[in-house]
Amino acid sequence: MTFTVTILGSSSAKPAYDRHPSAQILQCGDDLYLIDCGEGTQMQMQRFNINPFKITHIFISHLHGDHYLGLLPLLDSLMLNNRTKPLYLFAPEDCMRAIVLHRQISAHNYQPDYELIFKPTQAQAPEVIVDNNHLTVTTLPLQHGLPCTGFLFKQKQADRKMIGAAIEKYRIPYHLIPDIKKGADYTTPQGKVIPNNLLTTLPPAPLSYAYCSDTAYSEPLIPLVKGVDVLYHESTYLSDMQEVAPLRGHSTSIDAAKIARAAGVGKLFLGHFSPRYDRLHHYLHEARPFFPDTYLATEGLVINIAGN
Amino acid sequence: MTFTVTILGSSSAKPAYDRHPSAQILQCGDDLYLIDCGEGTQMQMQRFNINPFKITHIFISHLHGDHYLGLLPLLDSLMLNNRTKPLYLFAPEDCMRAIVLHRQISAHNYQPDYELIFKPTQAQAPEVIVDNNHLTVTTLPLQHGLPCTGFLFKQKQADRKMIGAAIEKYRIPYHLIPDIKKGADYTTPQGKVIPNNLLTTLPPAPLSYAYCSDTAYSEPLIPLVKGVDVLYHESTYLSDMQEVAPLRGHSTSIDAAKIARAAGVGKLFLGHFSPRYDRLHHYLHEARPFFPDTYLATEGLVINIAGN
Repeated sequence: MTFTVTILGSSSAKPAYDRHPSAQILQCGDDLYLIDCGEGTQMQMQRFNINPFKITHIFISHLHGDHYLGLLPLLDSLMLNNRTKPLYLFAPEDCMRAIVLHRQISAHNYQPDYELIFKPTQAQAPEVIVDNNHLTVTTLPLQHGLPCTGFLFKQKQADRKMIGAAIEKYRIPYHLIPDIKKGADYTTPQGKVIPNNLLTTLPPAPLSYAYCSDTAYSEPLIPLVKGVDVLYHESTYLSDMQEVAPLRGHSTSIDAAKIARAAGVGKLFLGHFSPRYDRLHHYLHEARPFFPDTYLATEGLVINIAGN
Repeated sequence: MTFTVTILGSSSAKPAYDRHPSAQILQCGDDLYLIDCGEGTQMQMQRFNINPFKITHIFISHLHGDHYLGLLPLLDSLMLNNRTKPLYLFAPEDCMRAIVLHRQISAHNYQPDYELIFKPTQAQAPEVIVDNNHLTVTTLPLQHGLPCTGFLFKQKQADRKMIGAAIEKYRIPYHLIPDIKKGADYTTPQGKVIPNNLLTTLPPAPLSYAYCSDTAYSEPLIPLVKGVDVLYHESTYLSDMQEVAPLRGHSTSIDAAKIARAAGVGKLFLGHFSPRYDRLHHYLHEARPFFPDTYLATEGLVINIAGN
C-alpha cells in the first residue's frame, strides 16, 4: 500500500525564496491526509498534481497563521467544486470559530454539500484521534507557547501472507483463508492440525511517520516517536540562533538531530526553514554529525516511508 | 508622478492554470495601494518584486474569500517584519472581525508595532474615502449579492508648470512661484500685471483608474466611471454563460465592453477569469467588437495609466 509524504511547504512564519508555509500530504493507499495548511496550500497542490478531492482528513498542528490560513480558501474551493464526501478536520478548538466566522461574513447563501466533521484536539497528552482499517493517528504534544500538537501516523499490522503452495498442498477451503491470514492454524478433514507458520509468512512491518512542527527541543517527545521510520522535525534555525530558538518555541537542526538520535528513528527530514537563511545546505552540515540519515524536506519532495 | 497598476491576481473564485485570486497594486508616486488581497498575494508580491512595506492603503472590495483571505497572512508578515508605519484598511465592516479573531486565536503575545487604521466601507452610495495631496479614492457600489464596492482612483489636478524663461524675463522672486503655479498673476515692482498664461503652461490632465470587481452588468456604474483613463472590469465569463452570469453576480466580457463603451473610457482591462476557461484569447475576441481598446489583465502586467 502506498505510504508516502509529499512536502508542499517548507518555510517558517513568512514565505521566502519561493518557499511556502507549512503543508504536507500523507498518502495512505488511495486516501490523502493533509497535514497543516498554510497560505497557498491549494496552489501548491495544483503545482504538484495532488487532487484535493481525495483528501479525507485534515490535521492542523496549531493556529499560527502559517499553519492554518490556507484552510479557509481550500474549504471554499471544495465547496465551489461541489464536494460531497465528508471531510474530517482535526485542529485546536478555535479553528472552527475561524471557519464559522468566514462562512458567515462571506455570506455564501448555500452550505457546502459535504459534511465537515470537526474533532478538536488537545495538547496536554497524546491521544489516538484516528483508528481505521489502515492506520492510527496519535497526537504528539509539542512545546510552542500555545496549544500545538504533532501527529504520529502508524500503519496497522497487515495480515500474514498466505503461502500459495500450502493452499494447494493442504487443499484449504477458500472461506478459511481470512482466519489463517490472521494467524489461525488449519485442521484438515482428517483432524490433522497444520500450524500457521507452515501456511503463512510474516507481512511487512507496519510503517510509521511522525510530524513534529513547531516545537522547542522537547525531551518528552523522544519516547513518543521512538523507532518511527521517518521523523519530520522542524528546524527553524541553525546553531547561530541556538539561544533564541527555545525562547521562540523553535528548534535548531542540531536539536532535531538529537531527538532523531535519541529516538532511534530511521530517517530525519528537516523543514520550517527561517527566512533568515537563503541557502539550506548548512542545515545538513550541522545536523549530520549528530544524525547522519538527515535530509531536507524541500517542496515537491515525495518521501517513500517504506525506505528507499 | 508614477501612476501604474500591477496585476497580481486574475482568477475568479478558485485558483487555476497558475492564475491567482484577485489582487492589484496601484503605485502612486512612492506609495503603494493594494486593491483586494486574495490568497497568495504576498507571494505574488515577492514574485513581482513589490515591497509590501511601501503599502500605505489596502482596499477590499468585498468579503468573498478570493478577495480577502490573503489579508490575514499579509498583516502577520508585516507584524513579524516589525513594520511601524501606520496602515489604512478600507473594507466592509466584518473584515475587522476576521482580523480580530485571527489575532486572538493565533495567540500572538505581542500587538503589531504598526497601527492598523480601519475604515469600514458601505455599498449603498459612492463615497470619497481618501482625499490626500495626490488623489481621491471613491467607492463604486457594485451588484454582487453582498455588499461590494469598486474603487475609483483619481489624481488631483497638478499645479500649472512654470515657464523657465518667464521667471528670468520678469525676474520673479522665488517665494511667489508656488502661488503662480496655482494660477496667480504676477505684479511687477512697477505695478504691471503679467497674466498667468504668460508665466505657466497647463499641467498634464489628472489621471484616473477604476477597479470594478465583482459585479453583474450594472448600468448605474456607467456615469461613475465616465471618461476614466483605464477601467478594470471583471469578466468572469464568456458569452456561453451570459444567462448564468447575472444570477451569479458576474459579468461576461461583452458586458464589460458595453460598460466601457457607454462610459467612454480610455482603455478596458478584463480580469477575474473563470477556471472554466483555460485559454483567454476568447475574452478579447468577444469584447473587442464592442470596445476595441480591450486588453487582458494578466498577472505581472504593469499598466501605465498615463497611456502608452
